[in-house]
Amino acid sequence: MAKTLVFGHKNPDTDTIASAIATSHLLRHLYNWDTEAVALGTPNEETKFALSYFKLEAPRVITIADTDDVVLVDHNEAAQSIDNLADVTVAAIYDHHKFNFSNSTPLYIVAKPWGSVATILYFEFKNNDVTIPANIAGLMASAVISDTLLLKSPTTTEADKVALSALSEIAGLEDYEKYGLDLLKAGTDLSSRTDKELIDGDAKSFDMAGHQFRIGQVNTVDIDDVLARQAGIEDAIKSEGYEDFLFVITDILNSNSKAIYLGDANDAIESAFNAKLAGNVIDLPGVVSRKKQVVPPLEQQF
Amino acid sequence: MAKTLVFGHKNPDTDTIASAIATSHLLRHLYNWDTEAVALGTPNEETKFALSYFKLEAPRVITIADTDDVVLVDHNEAAQSIDNLADVTVAAIYDHHKFNFSNSTPLYIVAKPWGSVATILYFEFKNNDVTIPANIAGLMASAVISDTLLLKSPTTTEADKVALSALSEIAGLEDYEKYGLDLLKAGTDLSSRTDKELIDGDAKSFDMAGHQFRIGQVNTVDIDDVLARQAGIEDAIKSEGYEDFLFVITDILNSNSKAIYLGDANDAIESAFNAKLAGNVIDLPGVVSRKKQVVPPLEQQF
Repeated sequence: MAKTLVFGHKNPDTDTIASAIATSHLLRHLYNWDTEAVALGTPNEETKFALSYFKLEAPRVITIADTDDVVLVDHNEAAQSIDNLADVTVAAIYDHHKFNFSNSTPLYIVAKPWGSVATILYFEFKNNDVTIPANIAGLMASAVISDTLLLKSPTTTEADKVALSALSEIAGLEDYEKYGLDLLKAGTDLSSRTDKELIDGDAKSFDMAGHQFRIGQVNTVDIDDVLARQAGIEDAIKSEGYEDFLFVITDILNSNSKAIYLGDANDAIESAFNAKLAGNVIDLPGVVSRKKQVVPPLEQQF
Repeated sequence: MAKTLVFGHKNPDTDTIASAIATSHLLRHLYNWDTEAVALGTPNEETKFALSYFKLEAPRVITIADTDDVVLVDHNEAAQSIDNLADVTVAAIYDHHKFNFSNSTPLYIVAKPWGSVATILYFEFKNNDVTIPANIAGLMASAVISDTLLLKSPTTTEADKVALSALSEIAGLEDYEKYGLDLLKAGTDLSSRTDKELIDGDAKSFDMAGHQFRIGQVNTVDIDDVLARQAGIEDAIKSEGYEDFLFVITDILNSNSKAIYLGDANDAIESAFNAKLAGNVIDLPGVVSRKKQVVPPLEQQF
């Protein structure tokens, strides 16, 4: 009997990797499931920093699920999931995004509109009296820091603050602010990444009323550094064949973004963000959250 | 500011009414939400018996939601929900069915593949240290009894057994088996109901690959009593304009069913249940659960 595979979305970020590892552990102890945390891609630089710091192995990368049952974490939409999702049974979902999911059998779902899935999982462990190993707690703390930009993103909730504090204590992390800045900075060294890697790194596809939209995001400490590579980035988007691509560049120190847009929906983009495109670039002051500040206004346009 | 309305599916059964009342109470205490339990129809005879026994008022019946936020219990599919669902924000879902839900903002979802939503709610109260008032616990115990046919339906899980025992104790219900039989029998007095009331009573619409299917179910202690009304039941189905209607008649004492089918999918019905229709009636030995034994084999055909 094949194991139940637990995985997050394609182009995994720290919350997706941490949640897969934590959920696999939780389900083994809560429901006695034979689970394995896997991933739909290799960890990014930020996640590698956290895995290395807490001495955890990166999950095995899979491209199809060769099993009957799967558990989805940090996503629920087929467009962001494994290619053969339609061939397997989704037994559980742990997520903090909007929903676009249908299936044919009752299942477990725990979803909350909180800053990270790691926060939701912290409370699942706590409320069900399952102990969190110190290294997994450290990775979960990293996920909260990553998804909430050290509790500064507008997605941050009281629950995230409680979870980050408790997880840091379990992990023996004495100064999570200092660790958090090191973690976030580890994710902003873009110099070693090619233009194709930049646009693919964190991008997700969204089906907006039949319109396929792809939205990427990179964190940086200097937006101009990234914009200096605009020509190469645009070439990469075109050569990958994406017809609608919004590439959001976020300054994590000052909580602002600019975005490069290539596609045929300039009017919708300008209306959504109430600003003008100039040379394919639009200014997004105060925007740091794709989920809360980029996707909803775009969805309203489609 | 309008309250958040909490409601279950159309044609409410005991689990839907009990879960709306229990969830409204839970959310007031857990998240300090200003909630009101309402219903999309009047209680059936079984639910009236439980409400009266535990001295609770039936929830106010609404036809549209005149509020910004709603909470769905015991359903998640638009076809079973309030008509203006698309105009409101779904803030939370507590359910134990298959999913067919999409929205545009992150939300709370607690779903588990257990026998009743009341069971899921019992553990939500317990794990979050919220006290269940005795009369609400009694109504929740009634919901577990109703949805699991006194723990005999194949939908029954260990969690349902634990919940029914604990809820009975909180409610001061000394003999839940005796109470349960009285409750189930209260729901089987069909003599006072018209043919139209019979087919509408518990019916739900299912969208199976674009095919609109309607499935009703009545519980009885004598299937032949109900089949004696077959001509009138068929007339009611036709005069209501339903094109595909499966009317399941379940013997709750012996855990068997027969069904009347009117529609153009005779082959699919016969394949789904591996039996022949005779005079529009098909034998369903051992079938008591629409969710677990009727809907899944039909979905496989469409």
